[in-house]
Amino acid sequence: MIKVVIFGSGNVATHLTRAFIKAKDVNLVQVYSRTIENILYLTKKVAITDSLKKLKDADIYIIAISDDAISDFSKELILNDKLVVHTSGSVKMNDLNSESNKGVFYPLQTFSTTKKISFKKVPICIESERKEDLIILEKLGSSISKNVYLIDSKQRQKLHLAAVFVNNFVNHLYTIGNKICQDNKVPFQVLQPLIKETADKVQHINPKEAQTGPAQRNDQSTIAKHLSQLDNNQKEIYKILTDSIKKSHN
Amino acid sequence: MIKVVIFGSGNVATHLTRAFIKAKDVNLVQVYSRTIENILYLTKKVAITDSLKKLKDADIYIIAISDDAISDFSKELILNDKLVVHTSGSVKMNDLNSESNKGVFYPLQTFSTTKKISFKKVPICIESERKEDLIILEKLGSSISKNVYLIDSKQRQKLHLAAVFVNNFVNHLYTIGNKICQDNKVPFQVLQPLIKETADKVQHINPKEAQTGPAQRNDQSTIAKHLSQLDNNQKEIYKILTDSIKKSHN
Repeated sequence: MIKVVIFGSGNVATHLTRAFIKAKDVNLVQVYSRTIENILYLTKKVAITDSLKKLKDADIYIIAISDDAISDFSKELILNDKLVVHTSGSVKMNDLNSESNKGVFYPLQTFSTTKKISFKKVPICIESERKEDLIILEKLGSSISKNVYLIDSKQRQKLHLAAVFVNNFVNHLYTIGNKICQDNKVPFQVLQPLIKETADKVQHINPKEAQTGPAQRNDQSTIAKHLSQLDNNQKEIYKILTDSIKKSHN
Repeated sequence: MIKVVIFGSGNVATHLTRAFIKAKDVNLVQVYSRTIENILYLTKKVAITDSLKKLKDADIYIIAISDDAISDFSKELILNDKLVVHTSGSVKMNDLNSESNKGVFYPLQTFSTTKKISFKKVPICIESERKEDLIILEKLGSSISKNVYLIDSKQRQKLHLAAVFVNNFVNHLYTIGNKICQDNKVPFQVLQPLIKETADKVQHINPKEAQTGPAQRNDQSTIAKHLSQLDNNQKEIYKILTDSIKKSHN
């Protein structure tokens, strides 16, 4: 059994807590939150605390708090020679307090409080300062997910950047699609199956090969027709993405 | 039984043909293609022809050929007082030959030759010149899909535009994500579950409410860090989408 302590009560901390409570090979010995009210609901399932002086002994200490706070928070911990990891995509491993053995345990997924997620398919990106710690992180990752990847800090930084494109920016394009629907009294549901199929396709096909549409076939008349119907902001986005598609197929 | 003739042998024609062959209330009496080799595989299932002089009698004639060719092709048909529809998102109903009763039967989905699709969830957008033809189009749509929508030519034009954003442009962002992965020797599989979850979320939640990321929380330091890592083309896209997210949340 791997003994684990989690710090945090946000989305990632909550989803990890739920997953570890269920995992066979994990003993979640404690959850810490500065604002203990946030984790009071856990009292029956796991020990909780809001005091760093009352930390229990564990094999891994997981800091699952907001990116900006990780470095300072890790300095408050007196866990010399213990394995301390964070769960962030954008924070370097070495930003953790240097007295501990450092590592990263980054679940690459978008978490929301309202929507449940099955951890089995969530990719876990792991990294550690000491080689021997990789083994325990791999074991911990495998206890909740089928997809554990060895990813170093530089690769993780790039992954986080790529995630902005395929998650945050994609979602914004959905928002624009939704707005065009609303403005023309068309229910957004008409677009939902297309959105799903577009995402499903690239689970099997390289996205470059899946590219279709007026930009890809250089259909100038449709492009001109589309541009004339957009507001300035949408027009700029349309132009730049159309140009980029054309370039990438040359 | 609704008697149907389909013109075409491309993706949409092929998927519709397959769906109508299976549909209970539909009698697919004939499939036409100028290049008969493309539809020879159908001979055992349905009558085929490459001659417009040998068209069979039907209730609906469906032109499922490329957008540019629809108008001219419809002029070659001598089907006065018959219901003739096209399947395009961007062509106006009135671009069809005026001697027939006009209509549109637009399945809003991305079709590829390699990937099978269940028509049940494909939204079918219908429109007709005469009110009585709507009933038969509704019946035809319902024979293969659970989602039939009444959409006029103006709305359809806007839907097609919205589809470029949520399908073509989204796919291009996947391509950029894939490229960032490749350049850093990270398998694209690490991003696939995130892509799927991002699309799944907006099946239930309004995309504007689902928006997360550095632009949404106005995290300048992460934005600056990201920009410094991108090539010029990616940088432009990143800037414009970041600005647009900021604006849309003000």
